[in-house]
Amino acid sequence: MSSPLITPPTIGVFDSGFGGLTVLRALVARLPRARFAFIGDTARLPYGSKSRRTIARYAVESAQFLVRKQGAEFLVIACNTASALALDAIQDAVPVPVLGVIEPGASAARAASRTGDVLVIATDATVRSHAYAAACQARGLRALEMACPLLVPLVEEGWTNHPVTAEVIRIYLEELNAEAAAQGLHPDTLVLGCTHYPLLRPLIESAVPAGMKVIDSAEAAAEAAIRLFNGRAAPAASRVVDRETEIRCFATDSVEKFERLGSRFLERPVGNVELVDLGG
Amino acid sequence: MSSPLITPPTIGVFDSGFGGLTVLRALVARLPRARFAFIGDTARLPYGSKSRRTIARYAVESAQFLVRKQGAEFLVIACNTASALALDAIQDAVPVPVLGVIEPGASAARAASRTGDVLVIATDATVRSHAYAAACQARGLRALEMACPLLVPLVEEGWTNHPVTAEVIRIYLEELNAEAAAQGLHPDTLVLGCTHYPLLRPLIESAVPAGMKVIDSAEAAAEAAIRLFNGRAAPAASRVVDRETEIRCFATDSVEKFERLGSRFLERPVGNVELVDLGG
Repeated sequence: MSSPLITPPTIGVFDSGFGGLTVLRALVARLPRARFAFIGDTARLPYGSKSRRTIARYAVESAQFLVRKQGAEFLVIACNTASALALDAIQDAVPVPVLGVIEPGASAARAASRTGDVLVIATDATVRSHAYAAACQARGLRALEMACPLLVPLVEEGWTNHPVTAEVIRIYLEELNAEAAAQGLHPDTLVLGCTHYPLLRPLIESAVPAGMKVIDSAEAAAEAAIRLFNGRAAPAASRVVDRETEIRCFATDSVEKFERLGSRFLERPVGNVELVDLGG
Repeated sequence: MSSPLITPPTIGVFDSGFGGLTVLRALVARLPRARFAFIGDTARLPYGSKSRRTIARYAVESAQFLVRKQGAEFLVIACNTASALALDAIQDAVPVPVLGVIEPGASAARAASRTGDVLVIATDATVRSHAYAAACQARGLRALEMACPLLVPLVEEGWTNHPVTAEVIRIYLEELNAEAAAQGLHPDTLVLGCTHYPLLRPLIESAVPAGMKVIDSAEAAAEAAIRLFNGRAAPAASRVVDRETEIRCFATDSVEKFERLGSRFLERPVGNVELVDLGG
C-alpha cells in the first residue's frame, strides 16, 4: 500500500551574508528530506554597523520573501546581528515560527557548563550588542564576550587550516583567558557566536585549555529548530517519501562570492545562487 | 601693512569608509593652512560588492554634500572603488575639480619603474575592477594585481606592527612575486592600491625584494592634488594668514569606529565626527 505523496516541509534560513550556511548545513544533516530556502542579504551587509531600525526592516523583507515567495513554514535566523536586534520584528511580521541563533547557543552553554562561567567569541557587532551575555545571564551564567574581527576574513580567505589562523586564535584566546582570570571567572565552556567560526572548530578546539567545551551556535540552533519543528510538523514530515534534500539559495547581490565560498560552509555544492531584488 | 584676511580654500575628501584619512593626512602635510572637509559614507560601505550605478549614486551624493554644504572648491576621491567606477559621474555632478587615487598612483609607478613591470596590491573589489592595470597599461607599464583581503582587517585590528601581519605580508608577496616570475615579468615597483595600506608601509618595505620601490597611492594622490590645486588657487592660498589646519570629519553611520580608528590613519586626533544623513 503506497502512502500519498506529501509535499515536504519548507524551512527558510536567513542571513545577512552566507555564513549562515553553517546553520543550514546543520539543519540538512538533521532533516535530509526537507526543502530548504536560504537567502543571504549580501547587497546590504554588513548589518553590524547599521541601526536597529534599519536592520529590522532589512531582516523583515528577507523573512517575508522566504515565507511569501518560497513558502517557508518555519524560519531560522542564521545571523547573529539580526537575531540580536530583529527577532521580535520578524516574529511580528510573519505567521510562522521563527528561531534565532543566540538563545539556542546560550541554552547549549547552560547545559554544558559546570562552573557557570562561559566565554563567547563573536564579531564586533555581536559583542557590542551583548546579546549573548544577556541570554547567558538569563540562564544563570556569567559570560565574558570578546570580539575576534580577524576570524571572518581568515575564513573567507580560505585559511581555515593555516598556521597564521592558528596563531591568531592562540592570541585571541590567550587574551580572553587572561581577562577571565583577571575577573575571577573559571570558564569551562566557549561559545562560537558567529556563523563563520564552525569552519575554524578544529583549530579552536586545539587552542582551548584542556577540558574546555566548545559550543557551536550553528549546531545548537539546528538542534533547537529540529525540536521545535518536530513538535509541530513531525506527523507530516514522517509521511514524506524518501527523497533528496532540496536546497535553493538566494542572494541580493554578489552571487559570485556566495557561489565561490558557500560550498565550504555548506559542505556540499550550493548550486546556482539566484539573485533577488528586495528593493531598498 | 597687513594683508586682508582671506578665507582659506576648502578641500573636500571623500571615502566610503575612513581609510581615505591617509590621503587627507598626506594633503594636510602639504597644505597645513587649508580647510578640509572629509566624509566617510560608512552607512553604505563596502562599495566593492555594489553595482557601478549604485556606487556612482552614493559617491555623487557625498561629493555634492562636500561642495554644496561644506563649500569644497576641490575634491579628492580617496576611495579606490569610487575612483575606479564613479569618477566620471562625480566630475559631471559637481562644478569643481575632482581627482581620484588611481591615476596618480599609476603615474607615480610610471615615474619610479625602470623595467616597466609593476605589482599592485589592493582589495578584492579594486583588483576585480582592474582599474590600476588599465591606468598602468595606458602609461606603457605591465601591471600584475593581487587582492590581499586580510590586510584591511589587520590594520583595523591595530596590528600594524605585529608578527602575524608581517607573516601575512610575506605570504602574499611571495605568492605575487612567484606569479610575476611565472609570467616573465621583472617588477621593480610595488603600488599600495588601498588607502589602508600606508599604515603597513614599514612592514611592506621590509618584505619586498631588495631594490623594489614602494609607491603609496595616498601620497601620490596628495602630490597630484597639490599640483592641480596650486595651479588654480595658489594666489589665494598664498595670501591666507598663518593659521591652524581646520579639519571637519563627517560620517553617514558608525561614528564610533571612525573616531576610534581614524586618528591612527590621520596621525592626529579626528575630533568629533559629525553624523550626516545623505538619504538613500
